[in-house]
Amino acid sequence: MASASLKAPEHPNIETTTGEYRVVSTMIKVQTDGREELYNLSNAIRDFVRSSGIRAGMVMVSSLHTTCAIFINEWQEALIHDVKSYLSNLISKSDYYRHNDPAWSDCDRHNADSHLRSLMLGMNLTLQIADSDVVLGEWQSVILAELDGPRERTIRIQAMGI
Amino acid sequence: MASASLKAPEHPNIETTTGEYRVVSTMIKVQTDGREELYNLSNAIRDFVRSSGIRAGMVMVSSLHTTCAIFINEWQEALIHDVKSYLSNLISKSDYYRHNDPAWSDCDRHNADSHLRSLMLGMNLTLQIADSDVVLGEWQSVILAELDGPRERTIRIQAMGI
Amino acid sequence: MASASLKAPEHPNIETTTGEYRVVSTMIKVQTDGREELYNLSNAIRDFVRSSGIRAGMVMVSSLHTTCAIFINEWQEALIHDVKSYLSNLISKSDYYRHNDPAWSDCDRHNADSHLRSLMLGMNLTLQIADSDVVLGEWQSVILAELDGPRERTIRIQAMGI
Repeated sequence: MASASLKAPEHPNIETTTGEYRVVSTMIKVQTDGREELYNLSNAIRDFVRSSGIRAGMVMVSSLHTTCAIFINEWQEALIHDVKSYLSNLISKSDYYRHNDPAWSDCDRHNADSHLRSLMLGMNLTLQIADSDVVLGEWQSVILAELDGPRERTIRIQAMGI
Repeated sequence: MASASLKAPEHPNIETTTGEYRVVSTMIKVQTDGREELYNLSNAIRDFVRSSGIRAGMVMVSSLHTTCAIFINEWQEALIHDVKSYLSNLISKSDYYRHNDPAWSDCDRHNADSHLRSLMLGMNLTLQIADSDVVLGEWQSVILAELDGPRERTIRIQAMGI
Repeated sequence: MASASLKAPEHPNIETTTGEYRVVSTMIKVQTDGREELYNLSNAIRDFVRSSGIRAGMVMVSSLHTTCAIFINEWQEALIHDVKSYLSNLISKSDYYRHNDPAWSDCDRHNADSHLRSLMLGMNLTLQIADSDVVLGEWQSVILAELDGPRERTIRIQAMGI
């Protein structure tokens, strides 16, 4: 079995930054145009972080909704198709849910599947800031998943650090 | 295909806060009363953040367990039922797991399903603080999922910011 | 139904720390040795946090990849086997995916399953720091899941606080 415990390197390269702590925030609106669609937020987040003036710290990206998720993955057209298809299959829209049943619920959107898909993906993302930019790997994009659109969605972005 | 890359708005409304950075923390205990139950932590977190005196920053909510998850969703009785039902179906309790097999494991709780469900949901949540309050959307609640109760659970909450 | 809303304790024990805010970061490399393997990062993260000098705050652990996840769970050999087995079953490697089809994609790794598994697990983890150490429960370990190895993986760790 290859699974193993890792030790820290003996002489790691550690960088330290000090300065005045600041919190900088904004809201962005996304008009979605399908029941299930993906949107690449990376440029919007990068632009905001660069304009925030924060050199080192972190940025939070929060969906203020319960049927709209945020996650990281590769932004490739074929893979976007696979992700949408997987999300649609993961939780069936047509199963019985009390949330969709007027005997139990006053929600007329019949969107229990959207709630459960968001639950599994998460609605908040926290990213590092270094050298005045968001730390993302070469193939990483920040992706918003609309799971019960079309709607106007509100995303709150807050950068914190030096 | 509606999937698209988004740009930041040209003149976003950006707010900046500066001041002395502080870290404020507490522990809360939750006595759960079923093997699988959900608890709404939103009021407890809001009360703590308001009493912390932090105006802008973030708050972390961490389960210190491996069979007890924390996530965001709508707190509606019908949907709570659906979430519990979905979590029970997602990973079968009765499948074979080495963790439940005395030949492989000294754990006598037979709770491999609880570990795997927690794994999928996550045990930590990070939320924004603005205007001295937790930033949550209208329908968002912070929910603790007991997945192997009843037990007393410990949740550590830490607010950081200005 | 046991599900309930919780109130904050009336006189919680709240601790406050103030001081100069700092950001301390490092990179670690992990050479993985199988297509799907788990690695325990807890010691590496603890060692880094202790050497960072930060007493109170948080630490972020970020995989800079899209087929390599980070999460918390118990580090027990039997359970590690169950987690690997569950991750392999959760999303089939042999299903049809456009990402694996030369007609749609130039990716020759045929790793759509690895992308989807990472998507479900998450690539970033945020942990609290208190008393100059990472806050983890007795049974919690920070685990890196290689989902498309063997490869050299880069993990960026950043501690922020006082």
